[in-house]
Amino acid sequence: MSSTKAGAATISLREAVEMDTTKAIELWLEIESDPTERERQIAALSADARAKLGGLLDAHTGPELLTTIDAHLAAKVLKAAPVEAAAGVVSTLDAPHAAEILRRFDNPRRDSLLDAMVIDRARMLRGVLSWPEDSVAAHMQPDALTVAPTSTVAQAVDQIREHAAGRPHGSAGAYVYVVGTEGILLGAVRLRALVLTPADRPVEALMDDPVTVAPLTDVEDAAMTLIDHQLDELPVVDAENRLLGVLTEDDAVQVAEQEATEDAERQGGSAPLEVPYLQASPWLLWRKRIVWLLVLFAAEAYTGTVLRAFEEEMEAVVALAFFIPLLIGTGGNTGTQITTTLVRAMGTGQVRFRDVPAIVTKEMSTGALIAIAMAAAALVRSWTLGVGPQVTLTVCLTVAAIVMWASLVSSVLPLVLKKLKVDPAVVSAPMIATIVDGTGLMIYFWIAHLTLPQLAGL
Amino acid sequence: MSSTKAGAATISLREAVEMDTTKAIELWLEIESDPTERERQIAALSADARAKLGGLLDAHTGPELLTTIDAHLAAKVLKAAPVEAAAGVVSTLDAPHAAEILRRFDNPRRDSLLDAMVIDRARMLRGVLSWPEDSVAAHMQPDALTVAPTSTVAQAVDQIREHAAGRPHGSAGAYVYVVGTEGILLGAVRLRALVLTPADRPVEALMDDPVTVAPLTDVEDAAMTLIDHQLDELPVVDAENRLLGVLTEDDAVQVAEQEATEDAERQGGSAPLEVPYLQASPWLLWRKRIVWLLVLFAAEAYTGTVLRAFEEEMEAVVALAFFIPLLIGTGGNTGTQITTTLVRAMGTGQVRFRDVPAIVTKEMSTGALIAIAMAAAALVRSWTLGVGPQVTLTVCLTVAAIVMWASLVSSVLPLVLKKLKVDPAVVSAPMIATIVDGTGLMIYFWIAHLTLPQLAGL
Repeated sequence: MSSTKAGAATISLREAVEMDTTKAIELWLEIESDPTERERQIAALSADARAKLGGLLDAHTGPELLTTIDAHLAAKVLKAAPVEAAAGVVSTLDAPHAAEILRRFDNPRRDSLLDAMVIDRARMLRGVLSWPEDSVAAHMQPDALTVAPTSTVAQAVDQIREHAAGRPHGSAGAYVYVVGTEGILLGAVRLRALVLTPADRPVEALMDDPVTVAPLTDVEDAAMTLIDHQLDELPVVDAENRLLGVLTEDDAVQVAEQEATEDAERQGGSAPLEVPYLQASPWLLWRKRIVWLLVLFAAEAYTGTVLRAFEEEMEAVVALAFFIPLLIGTGGNTGTQITTTLVRAMGTGQVRFRDVPAIVTKEMSTGALIAIAMAAAALVRSWTLGVGPQVTLTVCLTVAAIVMWASLVSSVLPLVLKKLKVDPAVVSAPMIATIVDGTGLMIYFWIAHLTLPQLAGL
Repeated sequence: MSSTKAGAATISLREAVEMDTTKAIELWLEIESDPTERERQIAALSADARAKLGGLLDAHTGPELLTTIDAHLAAKVLKAAPVEAAAGVVSTLDAPHAAEILRRFDNPRRDSLLDAMVIDRARMLRGVLSWPEDSVAAHMQPDALTVAPTSTVAQAVDQIREHAAGRPHGSAGAYVYVVGTEGILLGAVRLRALVLTPADRPVEALMDDPVTVAPLTDVEDAAMTLIDHQLDELPVVDAENRLLGVLTEDDAVQVAEQEATEDAERQGGSAPLEVPYLQASPWLLWRKRIVWLLVLFAAEAYTGTVLRAFEEEMEAVVALAFFIPLLIGTGGNTGTQITTTLVRAMGTGQVRFRDVPAIVTKEMSTGALIAIAMAAAALVRSWTLGVGPQVTLTVCLTVAAIVMWASLVSSVLPLVLKKLKVDPAVVSAPMIATIVDGTGLMIYFWIAHLTLPQLAGL
């Protein structure tokens, strides 16, 4: 009974839009706080309803809705709305979110939207949009809170008030930045320190010396710096130490989560989706996946050539064929374990190129231990299949050799690719499996030639 | 020249410890801000030097060092130090970090350390330690800043000052919590709001109604809630809405990063390492990897049985064997693409069990598109291997069937496991490859029987 009542008391976005008042959108946002559910309901709207929704958003509901959902969907809503309404809503968003959404617009539409905005705001957004998308500057809040070094605590608080009044939905800001002439960054003062200090003290006395980054720093590296050092904000400064803006912890976390998702997708052997999974159409999924599938298919096709070359061997000892999936599968598994661990360690900055010797030593030692265990397992399996002592010997030696080979390849490859400026996350499980499959088969038949007298003449 | 100079001007942790003064540790911490490099140098210390380091840490250097490195290594340093020194250092850490390190101690050692601490502090830590390790309560700051609803802004600021004085390295805190009788949470006030409001206003007027979680909530879910909703803090309340503590954004981000690492390792087919990769010994790596390798080996061993069952078919048409790695590899790749995308989408809360029908429909549609493309690729490959039209037909039909089969298995399995309370991240690339390998071979020979007249009598 009560669940039916609760069900009847909710409101869907479609219903809220039909009511044609901002109050209904406000109500829906209060009831539906889950971003994924919000995305679901927006995606289900008709184009008409989406246009209507864009027109209903105001200075409160706009940021609340558009900064919690995927930028792709947010752009869809704003593209559907009339330009004036969309410009009004974008004006209420903080700069990084506004820029991320505007990047999803084509140039003419973006320009007409920016032209419909207050000129200062438009100029600031054009500034953020002019930085490369993967730079930290493209993700920073360009309007950091700044005070002069000679200000007192009371003056600083006044300035914060003024700043906050002008940007009701701007960044909360954990720090006030102390800047000298020409915007040179001198230090940072925690808001908490301002609260706790007598009003007539100069802010200069409260300054910390913050960690900073250059504007063209890769945004993922900047985000990891902020997270690793457990900072609340990361100021972005140019070569003359002029303060350009601030990367906030919220924005850094979004970047890191996004990056972890993209790395996971690359590791699974497909191109990053760039939209939430549930919003991706089969066509989009197909496009993101088919390229790698075909590349891997072409690479794996080589195994057919190898097997045809050893056709006579297989005809002479057909039992050799029984072990093909098992042997190459074990090689792929061993390699996948190593690359996924390494790629993640590289993604979080734990491992660098100079560690290659240490990593290879570690992985080859581990590989030797694993090779012994897997050879024992292969012994048991060969015995249960009843293939005779010589094929058993071949299989045991091969599994050990393939484990060592897979360990070597997969411990070196991600770091070498990184050195070559290729994202190591492309070293996917499927790619390692494919590399090990063909080479593993060659190892197999080579060892078979050494151990099986039946193959002596071939 | 200048690089030699720069090199000579640095100091290693070993050298700093040998100087036997806290000032040297301070200097080293200032020079070496990279957490990974810090971990490296600590790991390289002798047990003696580590004990000495533990004794040199003070209220400033202790938190600076121990909260930036892995808890496992931090515990190693403190275990080496005399109990009194270690207790002193742990007292300077905030509760979640202290608890995380103490969890790495055995019970008697942990008790003797807690007994050496100030009783209030020890009681608070025992409280945090009593919660299950994966609950949000085990990771919260138990000493949130609280004020009465009738306090004025000025009184609240006084209370913050007192609180901050007692905990120089406690949580910075973005909010002050307004609690009524018996600690019931009434609302939260942003520190920024306190800064901006006249001193005689009551804090009640500034209260927001914060999102809260229960203490036994899984800490990963709580962290994702905080991140998804872009909150600065997440208060933890019991069933009576009493405030127990606060999950901070910093701690939530550490949890989310840790979880992403563990998921990546599971996805690679090994158990989570739990220590930084560079600190893991080959024995530890072996232990974390060998179980899954053996399980997968045992599961994959089934392919030998399948192939032996079809021995006569392979002898009749040896060309069938050429395509085995290619066909099962393609199945594994298709499945891996799907599971990694799905597992990540589930990890970030984008996808739930009720989405199964939508997901299966989406993945089977995508699978059909992929099947067509892969069948075309298989046609080209069969033709270049010159295996004749009938084997070509078999291979093309098989690749399409395996793609569809892999799509079905891998889109359903992660969500079913989640429903069965198994972490879907264990659906690793190697596991999907193994499942598809054996079943894919059966599909292959079954289709071969239907299309190859040579096999009619077998």
